[in-house]
Amino acid sequence: MPAATYIGNSTINIVESSQRPPAPGEVQIDVAFTGICGTDLHILHGNMDSRVTFPAVIGHEMSGRISALGEGVSGWNLGDPVTVMPLDWCGDCPACKAGHQHICQNLNFIGIDSAGSLQKQWNVPENVLVRLPDSLRLDHAALVEPVAVSVHDVRRAEIQPGEKAVVIGGGPIGVLIATTARHAGAEVVVLELDGDRRAMIQELGFAVLDPQTQDQVEWVNTWTGGAGADVVFEVSGAAAAVLGATALAKVRGRLVIVAIHPQPRPVDLQRVFWRELTIVGARVYERRDFETAVEMLAAGVIPADQMITGTVPLERTADAFSRLAAGDAMKILVDCQAVPA
Amino acid sequence: MPAATYIGNSTINIVESSQRPPAPGEVQIDVAFTGICGTDLHILHGNMDSRVTFPAVIGHEMSGRISALGEGVSGWNLGDPVTVMPLDWCGDCPACKAGHQHICQNLNFIGIDSAGSLQKQWNVPENVLVRLPDSLRLDHAALVEPVAVSVHDVRRAEIQPGEKAVVIGGGPIGVLIATTARHAGAEVVVLELDGDRRAMIQELGFAVLDPQTQDQVEWVNTWTGGAGADVVFEVSGAAAAVLGATALAKVRGRLVIVAIHPQPRPVDLQRVFWRELTIVGARVYERRDFETAVEMLAAGVIPADQMITGTVPLERTADAFSRLAAGDAMKILVDCQAVPA
Repeated sequence: MPAATYIGNSTINIVESSQRPPAPGEVQIDVAFTGICGTDLHILHGNMDSRVTFPAVIGHEMSGRISALGEGVSGWNLGDPVTVMPLDWCGDCPACKAGHQHICQNLNFIGIDSAGSLQKQWNVPENVLVRLPDSLRLDHAALVEPVAVSVHDVRRAEIQPGEKAVVIGGGPIGVLIATTARHAGAEVVVLELDGDRRAMIQELGFAVLDPQTQDQVEWVNTWTGGAGADVVFEVSGAAAAVLGATALAKVRGRLVIVAIHPQPRPVDLQRVFWRELTIVGARVYERRDFETAVEMLAAGVIPADQMITGTVPLERTADAFSRLAAGDAMKILVDCQAVPA
Repeated sequence: MPAATYIGNSTINIVESSQRPPAPGEVQIDVAFTGICGTDLHILHGNMDSRVTFPAVIGHEMSGRISALGEGVSGWNLGDPVTVMPLDWCGDCPACKAGHQHICQNLNFIGIDSAGSLQKQWNVPENVLVRLPDSLRLDHAALVEPVAVSVHDVRRAEIQPGEKAVVIGGGPIGVLIATTARHAGAEVVVLELDGDRRAMIQELGFAVLDPQTQDQVEWVNTWTGGAGADVVFEVSGAAAAVLGATALAKVRGRLVIVAIHPQPRPVDLQRVFWRELTIVGARVYERRDFETAVEMLAAGVIPADQMITGTVPLERTADAFSRLAAGDAMKILVDCQAVPA
């Protein structure tokens, strides 16, 4: 059985091994597709070496069909289409006890802290399975996880119909947040540096600005009648974006921190104070976000075909990473069952 | 009539002039006491010269009695004890129309943007008056404005009984926030660098830490059983405090920005993301905060006598500023009616 493993030094290695049968309480999934995301790139670039165990099978955006049931598993059948909510919490820490299991203080993120889905067969605990409708194509279903991120972010933003939202950063998560916010009734503008991405975002029907050539504060003030935006999503990870974000929000506006900022960033706290802004962190998702994401994909709300730039067989996983790192792709899927040409 | 005026160059000048009669819709107040606060110190040090008009009569924490009624004023009598909520909003901007008049986008803060209460008689619009009970001493009533700040801050924090709160900075506002949070049912610890202030805060019954010699993260983790604090109030204005504050909050904890930070401050956004923290700005107060503050002072909840370090006559206003700047006072009142010795 082939698996793509990260072995350090920005290297993906394809290995052949046999998957063990699922343990009691586990199921085995024939992985159909695995999407590569920014976090996977962070891992490849060595930024998360303290969390992974070498050689590391990574990958956590996936779809597949159940291929074996461990002892004691009930309610599932061979062949059922599924995705995985890759969070394995402890249940005992203060965060879990307060009901925030998704940000458990001892969280095992499956695909980072333990083995992920860049392999032909994957064993996971039964309780992380999320059922997919038969009508949902499995390539589209590989987007459930990032769509669930956007659903969680929009929910954390408490978006109301008719509100105006700015999304800073038009990568995959930015586009999904824009789509989900629009679905929730918001008007959305996306700020994005890359011209190809701006063109794609415009084709999806969003207003889009190039922050390098357009005055975003002036544009947002005109757009909002001098009020400022109700919500600003910081999805870019850039220090300059954080510093500029507070200037875009209205009095009592909300700023949602979606991106990972490895270093402390200068924040205009004077503006936070002056306008009584709220800044909220938004991390991963809860079960209901996953379920909403499945519904949105099944209903065709998400422009899945436009977002999936390409698909490669498992043996060419390294190529997918290279294209993403070069910035010339939105979302690349790895076909984990494909026989090499 | 004497008035204390800020004339630039860190200088307070006492001038003699005659106050005009109150205009229609205004009342004239014989100012009893005016407290000096950190904002007044910022003005004296030239940090807000773009907002004041020279010579500037400043001061906005006050108490007094009505001494004259302008045309059309009703519902008030000569001699009524009053304080002033020093906010004059436009009513037309997006913030006002959204119901957030206290952070009006064109706010006139009376005592900064227009003449304040460091004078024997003061004319103000009728609608900024707040009635005081006869039972409340007028020196204590000069604390209504800063107490209202603390009421607003605690309300923005959405403190629930039994929650644990950290107050970073044990100056007057920090002590008032600690008192108001405790009154709302929270357990409170105050972090303060100054030993004299720590002793005073301890006498008021609060836990207190010296962040220079004690490990605040370890202390808070032990205090909260590994969870972190429900709420952290940043009242110090220090960059290091902002950077450290996020480490003290629990998963989904709240950080309230009370202090003024003239420069952007590095914030650990990774922690904001990781723990899904919420950061909220809290500025001034609303009418209901003022009314709650009057009730709390009248009920003896606020340790007014301990907080008022001293009282000086209007002619010695400059001395009050000097003592505050030197850090050897908590709250100094200016007696605006006292005849010089």
